[in-house]
Amino acid sequence: MTPAAFVSPSTGRQVKAVLFDTFGTVVDWRSGVAAQVGRFAERHGLALDPFGFADAWRAEYQPAMELVRSGQRGYVPLDRLHLENLNRILMANGLSPDGFPSGGLEELNRAWERLPAWPDSREGLRRLKGRYIVGPLSNGNTALLVNMAKNASLPWDVVVGSDLLQAYKPDAAAYLGAAALLRLDPAEVMLVAAHNNDLAAARDAGLATAFVQRPTEHGPAQTTDLAPASNWDAEAADFIGLAQTLTLSG
Amino acid sequence: MTPAAFVSPSTGRQVKAVLFDTFGTVVDWRSGVAAQVGRFAERHGLALDPFGFADAWRAEYQPAMELVRSGQRGYVPLDRLHLENLNRILMANGLSPDGFPSGGLEELNRAWERLPAWPDSREGLRRLKGRYIVGPLSNGNTALLVNMAKNASLPWDVVVGSDLLQAYKPDAAAYLGAAALLRLDPAEVMLVAAHNNDLAAARDAGLATAFVQRPTEHGPAQTTDLAPASNWDAEAADFIGLAQTLTLSG
Repeated sequence: MTPAAFVSPSTGRQVKAVLFDTFGTVVDWRSGVAAQVGRFAERHGLALDPFGFADAWRAEYQPAMELVRSGQRGYVPLDRLHLENLNRILMANGLSPDGFPSGGLEELNRAWERLPAWPDSREGLRRLKGRYIVGPLSNGNTALLVNMAKNASLPWDVVVGSDLLQAYKPDAAAYLGAAALLRLDPAEVMLVAAHNNDLAAARDAGLATAFVQRPTEHGPAQTTDLAPASNWDAEAADFIGLAQTLTLSG
Repeated sequence: MTPAAFVSPSTGRQVKAVLFDTFGTVVDWRSGVAAQVGRFAERHGLALDPFGFADAWRAEYQPAMELVRSGQRGYVPLDRLHLENLNRILMANGLSPDGFPSGGLEELNRAWERLPAWPDSREGLRRLKGRYIVGPLSNGNTALLVNMAKNASLPWDVVVGSDLLQAYKPDAAAYLGAAALLRLDPAEVMLVAAHNNDLAAARDAGLATAFVQRPTEHGPAQTTDLAPASNWDAEAADFIGLAQTLTLSG
């Protein structure tokens, strides 16, 4: 028997689609990027700190998107922002981007398409997929997210890239556009994220919200987003717990 | 071991994504719509010929999209065109659309989201999914296609609705937009269809092409699209045969 749909305490509506922040929530970007930076450094005989490089690369993420969100730049797909940021980090490490063989940096940039899922992600998504539409609601562009899903076997029903919405979270347009694309009211869509600020923006846009703990996204000494910062509609230690909460019979 | 990718004889390129025409190629719209029209007629005590009604409803499909393709109308999602066409067919049958309870026609309109897959579709897609990105390249809009896939368990990797491209096949923009969304060259994308005119337009846009036979799409007396009308890159009797052709080791 199909379990009853989860009713959001804050909106009073049944959830029909469960969409996921991706980097950090579904996949472990830090370990994945560091592993690929490590191989890149070895191939080119470079002395790089893989985790430090991954953290520095990721630190350019929000400032690059902020130029788009603030209107200083038109929409640029995330994979291009990632490549621009890579060039910047190489230079900060005293390396010239022009010193690498043609295509080599594009290949390293694909690290963001080859990230490992957290151990519980696939099984949790599989369970949720039996009851809900599941998909990413990510700042990644569609091609990046589709390739990531193929590489990590993420069983999405639909892939909502930021290029479809021409907007980066936490702009309200990103959350509202995803709901409209599925022909759902915002209140029928739940955002799942390990980041309280993403959930706050989703709630402001009218979506249901669920917090999942990813206490080592930023490494063993992480100090942020260790716990829910508000009374989100649901919270769980991982995607298995989330699936249990969202698929209880009503 | 992952089999080698299919190389298109016409483009000389490896295929990376296999996209599918949907209505008629993946799902059996005629049987599905007729079954739901039959239940609708019974519920409302109407004397309707279910298959005749389905054929008449579908006959409005191309003219409705042609208004968009020709620029006489801006892009309108297919589910709205279907609802407009339903109203027209009811009136042609002497029935007033206003004579039905609120929401009743919208419910019948969802027949297009509840179509049965052809018997080989799911298993063929499952096999192809192991080697390629698979998705619909359909005139359906994203919400319609996502709901169809949930109802029929179609294992798509990505759903490319006509609303994402704001174009209806056979406009070249539809084929080119799908490839661009996946960050692929048109020659790296294959269209699979049971309709020779769709394949001709896809080839003109630079895509690889495969014809699959669906000889009863229009019922037992079908006279069109019974065989490939050109030397498409591949042809098969069904999706199992297609998967065999496209996943042979190189």
